[in-house]
Amino acid sequence: MALVVQKYGGTSVGSIEKIMNVARRVGKTKDAGNDVIVVVSAMAGETDRLVGLVNSITDLPNEREYDQVVASGEQVSIGLLAIALESLGYRAKSFLGFQVPIYTDSAHARARIRQIETENVMRAINEGYIAVIAGFQGIDEFGDITTLGRGGSDTSAVAIAAAMKADVCEIYTDVDGVYTTDPNICPNARKLEKISYDEMLEMASLGAKVLQIRSVEFAKKYGVRIHVRSSMNEKEGTIVTGEDEIMETAVVSGVTYNKNEAKITIVKVPDRPGIAAKIFKPIADAGINVDMIVQNVSLEGFTDLTFTVPKTDYKKTMLLIEKVAQEIGAERVQGDDKIAKVSIVGVGMRSHPGVAAKMFRTLASENINILMISTSEIKVSCVIEEKYTELAVRVLHDAFELGGEPKEEV
Amino acid sequence: MALVVQKYGGTSVGSIEKIMNVARRVGKTKDAGNDVIVVVSAMAGETDRLVGLVNSITDLPNEREYDQVVASGEQVSIGLLAIALESLGYRAKSFLGFQVPIYTDSAHARARIRQIETENVMRAINEGYIAVIAGFQGIDEFGDITTLGRGGSDTSAVAIAAAMKADVCEIYTDVDGVYTTDPNICPNARKLEKISYDEMLEMASLGAKVLQIRSVEFAKKYGVRIHVRSSMNEKEGTIVTGEDEIMETAVVSGVTYNKNEAKITIVKVPDRPGIAAKIFKPIADAGINVDMIVQNVSLEGFTDLTFTVPKTDYKKTMLLIEKVAQEIGAERVQGDDKIAKVSIVGVGMRSHPGVAAKMFRTLASENINILMISTSEIKVSCVIEEKYTELAVRVLHDAFELGGEPKEEV
Repeated sequence: MALVVQKYGGTSVGSIEKIMNVARRVGKTKDAGNDVIVVVSAMAGETDRLVGLVNSITDLPNEREYDQVVASGEQVSIGLLAIALESLGYRAKSFLGFQVPIYTDSAHARARIRQIETENVMRAINEGYIAVIAGFQGIDEFGDITTLGRGGSDTSAVAIAAAMKADVCEIYTDVDGVYTTDPNICPNARKLEKISYDEMLEMASLGAKVLQIRSVEFAKKYGVRIHVRSSMNEKEGTIVTGEDEIMETAVVSGVTYNKNEAKITIVKVPDRPGIAAKIFKPIADAGINVDMIVQNVSLEGFTDLTFTVPKTDYKKTMLLIEKVAQEIGAERVQGDDKIAKVSIVGVGMRSHPGVAAKMFRTLASENINILMISTSEIKVSCVIEEKYTELAVRVLHDAFELGGEPKEEV
Repeated sequence: MALVVQKYGGTSVGSIEKIMNVARRVGKTKDAGNDVIVVVSAMAGETDRLVGLVNSITDLPNEREYDQVVASGEQVSIGLLAIALESLGYRAKSFLGFQVPIYTDSAHARARIRQIETENVMRAINEGYIAVIAGFQGIDEFGDITTLGRGGSDTSAVAIAAAMKADVCEIYTDVDGVYTTDPNICPNARKLEKISYDEMLEMASLGAKVLQIRSVEFAKKYGVRIHVRSSMNEKEGTIVTGEDEIMETAVVSGVTYNKNEAKITIVKVPDRPGIAAKIFKPIADAGINVDMIVQNVSLEGFTDLTFTVPKTDYKKTMLLIEKVAQEIGAERVQGDDKIAKVSIVGVGMRSHPGVAAKMFRTLASENINILMISTSEIKVSCVIEEKYTELAVRVLHDAFELGGEPKEEV
């Protein structure tokens, strides 16, 4: 008998019919002799509706009150799921953040979990209940409702699994696991049986939308086994776990891509100390996330500096940077939003030199020009022209022998 | 400087535009130097939507979970109103039932308020905030969310006014006060400046939908002055208060009517002890509310028994009663759902004999036949044929000289 935490996203509870499906699935896990804690998001579209109501009053709402409003979405879905479970003959009890309680800091709309009390939920479990807990929300020391930010329910689920010492945290989503790459691009993409926390973190930050980054960080920190799987079928998905549990690590586990960035180059920047700070401060002040930064070696006291930002912030950043460029006496600014970032990820890289070289060679063999390079211990990313994205993904997937049997239809 | 509790119903906060109107109105009260506590219902239609979601799973939901779901409606409206107030430059803080806290018993969906802690709300008030409190909901000793039943926000407001020792509890509605009768029937119906708790209780139970009965009982018990007024204009409404405050009491304060009842007669019931209990037990077991009961004197060991039930329960009751009638050996059952109950209400009746007689005489003068009569200390009700309702209301309104100047247009 195991303690299983299951997390269902907004799409999985998007209608009464889907809630009944989730209830049947949860019930099956209970029937198999497990104790079950279910964490759910708001019904699909509900959080958007609530945010829309707030924003039709003001774009800058009081954050405490914003959280008060948007946290109501999960209140509805947990109650409905508990009612659905009871209607199928199970005993179920729903818990809001304050009823668990899940304590967070007071950073409204982006709160961080500090502590989860286990007593109330474990008492319910021991009395035979299925516990249904609201994701995304908590309560701070003042008794105010807080929310964890978009996608926070994954983090709720993992944190609850850690606190309750669950055997596994199953995250149900609309894909049936983590793939070596996007199956829409490579039909022979293979579902990974296991992947390490670090690889998953790189994949997530590179644009694979299977899990929220914070939830993976949390899982890594507390050693929570995550099982990413589909709510549509019964297949095993992908286990996200520690490297020690993965017997044979491939050199490269996956190929990811991200078309949502744009690159900006400041040409002929006078190479003085403090110049980079001067350039990036206004961008940071505007809340824009800079991803890659590349600075070439200085020639005759001048350097070129290139960086990438989300495509949605491209125009705003260009305006900011053109002003900065004048101030610091740079020659000019040039931008390009027709780019893509292609990356290979794998913990095996650490012990296998030459992986980056093989990536560059592979891209070169297809005449794909590399515009920027960035590396970490377990990943190599190249910025290329956007039009080559699919081609690059396919040749890299082949070059690192990631393909398996073509995925069967589900 | 006074402490004012204002309660706004679902219609008053039914859209963002209306919420902004409420915010301006609340702000004006604050600007006038008052401390303000606002109690709000869910946005119009929202509670129905939530109940609909629940009922599409089951007609008999777990009551704790039902409350968990339906209480979310007020969470949205208090947050939005607080945001609206802040956007107008006021400081506002919203409170859910558990944040006040408002303690209730554990009778889910029909909970009764036991105690209201004043500390959190009064601290916010003293710090200059406008407190915005969710109506309709509370929390029980187990930390479970409870709701007070439909229309419970009126009761929340009065209970909060009592606990916080507010100077007045203003209930905003879509009418601008309590009238001597329905102005749609009598154009010269007069708005009452004041009405006593007892009269208001009779009016409410007789079908005038201005205030929920429980809220008036609460107000009477704790001596809370209620000011019923319109959210559409600035006019003074009607004060509901103790009799001692009403200097000159009219013999009759108002005429009300109710077309939502049906009457059922069991003819020739053998007049034995315990027979009434036998008749009404199955009706009570079915959760049907019996209003008036009239039993004629017994003739030759038989009696006729007539009672009224809500029109919506008419058919169900007829089926039940036909079965009972057979069992007890009554001759037959006859029913009529084309009836109306017309009532006169007034505390002055106590000291003025002959009021009932005047009512009967007035109806007789228009050839309106009286089918049933029921009286209390401060009201007389007559059941008549439904088609005579408006006529009866008008002649009674005239006979007791209730009319005033024709109501001006607003």
